[in-house]
Amino acid sequence: MNQVLQFKSALREAVPSSAYLLEDEAQRAYEADWRGIVDNPSVAVLLPGSVAEVSAMMTLCASHDIAVVPQGGNTGLAAGAVPVGNLPQVVLSLRRMNKIRSVSPVNNTMEIEAGVILQAAQEEAARFDRLLPLSLAAEGSCQIGGAIATNAGGIQVLSYGSMRNLVLGLEVVLPDGRIWNGMRSLRKDNTGIDLKQVFIGSEGILGIITAAALRIFPRPKKALTVLVACDSAHNALRVFLETQQACGSDLTSCEYLTQAGLDLVHHHLPASRPPFQESHPAYVLMEMSSLDTAADLPARLEPLLMRLHENGIVRDVIVAQSESQRLALWQLREALSEGERAAGGAVKHDVAVPVAGIPQTIAAIERGLPEVAPGARLNIFGHLGDGNLHVNVMPPAEVAFGDFLAQARRVTAFIEENVIGAGGTFSAEHGIGQLRVESLKNHRAPLELELMRAIKGAIDPQWMMNPGKVLNQCN
Amino acid sequence: MNQVLQFKSALREAVPSSAYLLEDEAQRAYEADWRGIVDNPSVAVLLPGSVAEVSAMMTLCASHDIAVVPQGGNTGLAAGAVPVGNLPQVVLSLRRMNKIRSVSPVNNTMEIEAGVILQAAQEEAARFDRLLPLSLAAEGSCQIGGAIATNAGGIQVLSYGSMRNLVLGLEVVLPDGRIWNGMRSLRKDNTGIDLKQVFIGSEGILGIITAAALRIFPRPKKALTVLVACDSAHNALRVFLETQQACGSDLTSCEYLTQAGLDLVHHHLPASRPPFQESHPAYVLMEMSSLDTAADLPARLEPLLMRLHENGIVRDVIVAQSESQRLALWQLREALSEGERAAGGAVKHDVAVPVAGIPQTIAAIERGLPEVAPGARLNIFGHLGDGNLHVNVMPPAEVAFGDFLAQARRVTAFIEENVIGAGGTFSAEHGIGQLRVESLKNHRAPLELELMRAIKGAIDPQWMMNPGKVLNQCN
Repeated sequence: MNQVLQFKSALREAVPSSAYLLEDEAQRAYEADWRGIVDNPSVAVLLPGSVAEVSAMMTLCASHDIAVVPQGGNTGLAAGAVPVGNLPQVVLSLRRMNKIRSVSPVNNTMEIEAGVILQAAQEEAARFDRLLPLSLAAEGSCQIGGAIATNAGGIQVLSYGSMRNLVLGLEVVLPDGRIWNGMRSLRKDNTGIDLKQVFIGSEGILGIITAAALRIFPRPKKALTVLVACDSAHNALRVFLETQQACGSDLTSCEYLTQAGLDLVHHHLPASRPPFQESHPAYVLMEMSSLDTAADLPARLEPLLMRLHENGIVRDVIVAQSESQRLALWQLREALSEGERAAGGAVKHDVAVPVAGIPQTIAAIERGLPEVAPGARLNIFGHLGDGNLHVNVMPPAEVAFGDFLAQARRVTAFIEENVIGAGGTFSAEHGIGQLRVESLKNHRAPLELELMRAIKGAIDPQWMMNPGKVLNQCN
Repeated sequence: MNQVLQFKSALREAVPSSAYLLEDEAQRAYEADWRGIVDNPSVAVLLPGSVAEVSAMMTLCASHDIAVVPQGGNTGLAAGAVPVGNLPQVVLSLRRMNKIRSVSPVNNTMEIEAGVILQAAQEEAARFDRLLPLSLAAEGSCQIGGAIATNAGGIQVLSYGSMRNLVLGLEVVLPDGRIWNGMRSLRKDNTGIDLKQVFIGSEGILGIITAAALRIFPRPKKALTVLVACDSAHNALRVFLETQQACGSDLTSCEYLTQAGLDLVHHHLPASRPPFQESHPAYVLMEMSSLDTAADLPARLEPLLMRLHENGIVRDVIVAQSESQRLALWQLREALSEGERAAGGAVKHDVAVPVAGIPQTIAAIERGLPEVAPGARLNIFGHLGDGNLHVNVMPPAEVAFGDFLAQARRVTAFIEENVIGAGGTFSAEHGIGQLRVESLKNHRAPLELELMRAIKGAIDPQWMMNPGKVLNQCN
């Protein structure tokens, strides 16, 4: 404990008191993940306001052997941004580093600090008639740095790629406090090992991302949103494939949901109206967009959907006729998680398979689950075009969520086995955090883990960055 | 030398003779880079036909302390795939690993071995009505593995990204001979440090890429190619910006060239006709494409170019009216390097700056060069939309290229300083190889090099992979 006392005293001396929380009730808000699954104590919460302060704090932590947990908006689903176990550790929140340094509509780039809220960044880009395409449910509170550290995905990956694809440059504070300035705003730069790629998606185990240069895009001038009803996941996939074949990157979103999900939404939001008079087993929510102000998007999409309807692949279609109809359709998708939570919660999975394997994977899960967890209810939704499904398992109607948790490990093992067997992954966009460390060990070859550990050890030789997340040092 | 003799004897015992060249005149063809700048001896040339053979050979090399130089099509411009100095080293050519393992038009992916020629891969994708968008001058002889190891660029990066953006999975043989199977064909996979990113663009200094899973795309159904004449680089850039704003990712290529370049082409290919009656200082070659068979691309582009013409930004335009006209326009671009070589050669640079900085960078180089190398002639061309310029410097008309080489270092230093000063990079798509090792040391922070060395050391602790390329061990 001497080490911790010395650290606290050094912190008080070195850093203005506005930049940390120490023995303060407010610390608690940073220590638990928002889902309430993990809650462990920190020695202090650090709130740096500049990269120089991050650097000074990291140096202090390194010299006192205090581990560091970087935290953005703390909206992750794998508890990657909160303390683990009982190590002496600080939470380092980037929230005060929230400046947009510059926007260049000519370069189509913006330089932005890690603590900027994603939605604020989107809005700033929009002021310049530009699009920052990363878009996800937590955009009102997640931060850019966290989105980079977790390689966030969301609803426009199909056309614009994940966060990795948007990052041109990074500023990173290393575990020893040194600052790597890799803030280049270049489309091409083949000069040795591409260091930024190592930090993107590494979930804070290598250093603290303090700023980034991001790509932005001309802002689409037209959008068309449709909800398509199908009799099966198989036909839902065909709708996607035919539409992508016809529209390419103009198809900016393609989401999958089921009647089970819609029922959760309607129960939670009684004001939301069922989109169709009948129920259907599978739905596809698609959005096309175009920069061309003269583009006739309905003329491109409707004949295609008509043909699919005639062939029995599509059962019914709603084409949004106004912005409010468009938002109403999207609300059905966006309220899925909320509806699920309101109904008591679910054991969540974020899997991906090669796109062609989606129907078989869903079928195998639907077929096998009753044996693994009799009566459990599935809510499957996700990013059809990316092969990314959120396979969420709710307890039987009469069972409380807390009582269902005893079966969670078995359910998760069952789903992960199915997905891995289909050439897929057990974590598509949520990452590993502390909740999927076992899954990573189970499903990746020892050599792959050894390579990750070698890179981790090369950049953080003392293993002080975000301990207990992604990898453990010894096995 | 005992070590080399023992290695040769072990090679003869362990590997069928069809899989190597040893004390054979044919070795010579693998030892020099195609530009004839570097030519150093190898102990042997290894020609594995399978990943198992690569693994066995790497194990053999590791146990005998023989360095390994991976080689694809040997079309690189930085001598990264040929031996350096007098180390005991083998060239390991991937040319016999040239199978296309599978193509899935549903997943839009293909699995392909490293030795497949890029053009063969493009053609295989086309058989499935798919596009492998990587396209560059050397596509008839460069190999997929080399294109990944160098993160190759080319003429469609604007819309589809560099090679990095096309790679979903990799199979890699490590320096100690172990095989990492990372051949996942997934759009999303956030499971720890993304190892493939470390190998992509690392120029063979970390391991041997033996196969890859690549993204392919629906094949465009329509294309429109135009050549635009402008009075300056400044206005050329405006043409690009306005077109991209209007067309987004439908603008798949945007290339820059000058009258000096056209003159070289016409001199070399007398049958090629000057595109315009008059000469112009700057030209932009643009291609739009669309999946929409009903798309009216001229209706989208021509009014825009008309407006730019009325505003004095565009001087003249040629719109290709047929496939043969389209190919004739592209030939002007593609014959630039050939024309330059036929005229005696140039000191070449492959730089990138933020797009907005292109005109100023070109102006600064044009202004300053006469002092650095009086009478030297510039041939600047490249990928305008990516900010990527090939700044090639030819000797004064009366000076032989060989005599000009004495000034090459000074010329290169001058150009690199200008580019770095503009926030740019000295190597956009050609990489470091052995020709830009000094530049990397000069222009990157010591901390950045230290991080690269740390990663190199973590994966290749004996520094046996592609020695003398990208990084040196000690400084």
